[in-house]
Amino acid sequence: MSRVLATDAKDFVEKEISIKGWVRLRRDHGKLIFLDIRDRSGIIQVVVNPQVSQSAYKNAQALGVEYAVEIKGRVNKRPENSINKDLESGRVELEATEIKILAKAPVLPFDMGGEDLKLELPTLLDHRGLTLRHPKIAAIFKVQAVIIDEFRNYLKREGFVEFQAPSIAPAVAEGGAAVFEVDYFGNKAYLSQSPQLYKQIVMSAFERVFSVNKVFRAEPSVTTRHLTEVVSLDAEMAFIESWEDVKDMAQSTVRTILKRLEKECAKELKMYKVELPKMIEKTPYLSLRDAQEKIFKHSGRDARGEKDLNPQDEREICEIIKKETGSDFVFIYGYPTKEKPFYVYPNPDNPEYNEGMDLLCKGLEWASGGRRVNDYDQLMEHVKKWKLNPAKIKLFLETFKYGIPPEGGFALGAERMTMQILELSNVREASIFPRDIERIDERLTSKKRS
Amino acid sequence: MSRVLATDAKDFVEKEISIKGWVRLRRDHGKLIFLDIRDRSGIIQVVVNPQVSQSAYKNAQALGVEYAVEIKGRVNKRPENSINKDLESGRVELEATEIKILAKAPVLPFDMGGEDLKLELPTLLDHRGLTLRHPKIAAIFKVQAVIIDEFRNYLKREGFVEFQAPSIAPAVAEGGAAVFEVDYFGNKAYLSQSPQLYKQIVMSAFERVFSVNKVFRAEPSVTTRHLTEVVSLDAEMAFIESWEDVKDMAQSTVRTILKRLEKECAKELKMYKVELPKMIEKTPYLSLRDAQEKIFKHSGRDARGEKDLNPQDEREICEIIKKETGSDFVFIYGYPTKEKPFYVYPNPDNPEYNEGMDLLCKGLEWASGGRRVNDYDQLMEHVKKWKLNPAKIKLFLETFKYGIPPEGGFALGAERMTMQILELSNVREASIFPRDIERIDERLTSKKRS
Repeated sequence: MSRVLATDAKDFVEKEISIKGWVRLRRDHGKLIFLDIRDRSGIIQVVVNPQVSQSAYKNAQALGVEYAVEIKGRVNKRPENSINKDLESGRVELEATEIKILAKAPVLPFDMGGEDLKLELPTLLDHRGLTLRHPKIAAIFKVQAVIIDEFRNYLKREGFVEFQAPSIAPAVAEGGAAVFEVDYFGNKAYLSQSPQLYKQIVMSAFERVFSVNKVFRAEPSVTTRHLTEVVSLDAEMAFIESWEDVKDMAQSTVRTILKRLEKECAKELKMYKVELPKMIEKTPYLSLRDAQEKIFKHSGRDARGEKDLNPQDEREICEIIKKETGSDFVFIYGYPTKEKPFYVYPNPDNPEYNEGMDLLCKGLEWASGGRRVNDYDQLMEHVKKWKLNPAKIKLFLETFKYGIPPEGGFALGAERMTMQILELSNVREASIFPRDIERIDERLTSKKRS
Repeated sequence: MSRVLATDAKDFVEKEISIKGWVRLRRDHGKLIFLDIRDRSGIIQVVVNPQVSQSAYKNAQALGVEYAVEIKGRVNKRPENSINKDLESGRVELEATEIKILAKAPVLPFDMGGEDLKLELPTLLDHRGLTLRHPKIAAIFKVQAVIIDEFRNYLKREGFVEFQAPSIAPAVAEGGAAVFEVDYFGNKAYLSQSPQLYKQIVMSAFERVFSVNKVFRAEPSVTTRHLTEVVSLDAEMAFIESWEDVKDMAQSTVRTILKRLEKECAKELKMYKVELPKMIEKTPYLSLRDAQEKIFKHSGRDARGEKDLNPQDEREICEIIKKETGSDFVFIYGYPTKEKPFYVYPNPDNPEYNEGMDLLCKGLEWASGGRRVNDYDQLMEHVKKWKLNPAKIKLFLETFKYGIPPEGGFALGAERMTMQILELSNVREASIFPRDIERIDERLTSKKRS
């Protein structure tokens, strides 16, 4: 008898099947024992009746939460009044004839049986191997897997080639702040802060490239938005007409991800009682200066002339745009050229501002990108102005010496998107093994600091 | 006039189109100039005739290799005797009416026009931003992208969930050799050598999981098979009946990857004049001891009793199996328990040998894996025997305290697979930005070593 998954059991009514999974709940009702068994597909209810099998009943009495079991039995339709519409398998139940314990478990350190797992964040993370089994916690990482998968699928359909960006970097092109140092056979190396220059190199061969990679920031402060190791979804494309081509590609990527989530993650979104952010036909876009002007007109708060939007500005401009257009998304472009990296393309009509852009959603930055400097002479001018050491970015500069057409790209942050879609309060909840100044799996406070 | 890709031009015969790409070749034939233009889809021939357009001809005269261009013109069928069957666009050519230079390029430091790029490895890597544009070099990374993509696709179809394994690790479970140290806010951290324990943790929630991740080894020697940063394709599955379930999943994963390569990478395989390794219906498998016995019988070379196969053994056993069965693949299982990591499951009938396995192909290890110890008490015994510090693997051990059924997994090396499928002589050719003791992009020899 080969194994049937929980959600497939409905196709085996009045048949004998075998299931495998973990005990999520055990309820004793008089002479009957009810079990909720969780496997990779979902949950199924098992009823253990001593009249049906004395030995199964005896084993069921010994079961605790998180025991791993194999259960044989017969699939029965549930009576109309006990159908559970919240379960995919809710129209059936398994009447156990045989229960085999595959692995035992002691009593859990906290209750995992509820719909919500009411734990403080440190406890949630200290017990990752348990808390991850709670359906609502597992849902976070199913959503994240779909986001990442659809990022790749969509870009593949658009002719992008995947490449593997390196994590160990030889030098820090843009200064050494917030970077982790690696002892590399006695040399100094660093953990990559961004695959930016690598994706621009690889673009020169494949024209359109993407990469799902780790980026590392030695972020010394504790905020709800920052981790030291995050998953970056990077894309770069050549032969653009203007920065708007990059904007449009970022928009259609996000739109496609949202559509796939709608289709495949309805259950997970329902668990979090959230609706997907609304992306209208044409996402509004405005320059940094226009955004600041709008904020000033709206609230009187004067951030005009600032080099960037701060978190409060980001929230406000998103609220204003939402009211005006119904869109939860807005692109902000045109940042002061000298405040941004050397590779960002200055607007030829007004070179003090660049053609870099950010995509905000409900006050949070989802993506950043824009057009890049592609002309070699202009790039070398920037290298000088930004006081960079050209020897440290030799591979990159050589690439641009040889025929690079107008190009640009963008990057999305997987954890931030997950966090905001599920309306989590801390980005650490959206990282399966979050790293920050205080934690790498275990809390670091007890360790010696130099 | 919107852009048409090189390989789509055949659908626009007798129509006006616009193409964009890089000049791969320029040949002057009397009054005509022929250009090979490369874009992300492939190559198309452009003929520039001054009778058709004097200005296009003038611009064509200025063109050099790797110039980025936009060319407008009319698609013509080629005369029967000038059809190029090696090109997807080989039945047509574009007659230029307008040529626009998007970016110039100086003369290349080496010839990139030939079918092969005849460069020494250091030169190939020193100029990655150029050499990657050669179709035969780009082909390596198209093949690699397909390998990685099909690994994911197949496992998704089999119910596996993708997760993001961390790169920064708090401690080294199995000793500190060959590991890179990271300065983590004054604490010592390390670059992950393997996502092994993480995938076992995540398996406890999703039952079947996979991960495409970087692993790092501070490999101090220079060999043709080793890099310090590689792409590991990891899978783990619960509720197995025996280690053979893991073997079968590894086999079907590789089989599916080979099938997809056959379908999608025929052009790339042809460039390298290689045939895919042959996987027969049922890949042979034999124990380490039986393999050593076979080698002894075959060649008289006595490696019986050794704890592992050395590279010569691996080549020999693959040759023997190929002769006996026609299979290019063979699984070797049953290594001495005490020589392998603590998590590998000992054979209950003969606990001196374990249920770990390797998948060899033509003398090279493609995958390793096997069944793991799932029983908590047995695991704690191993922790003691292997003299590990349980505090350093707390998350992992807690996971296994709570109901872990029989389980196992495997990992494939993306660069090694790519290397062997294309019969490259060095794994560095199969890594887009290879890192080793001598190189991170640039050669390290000029830097100070401590």
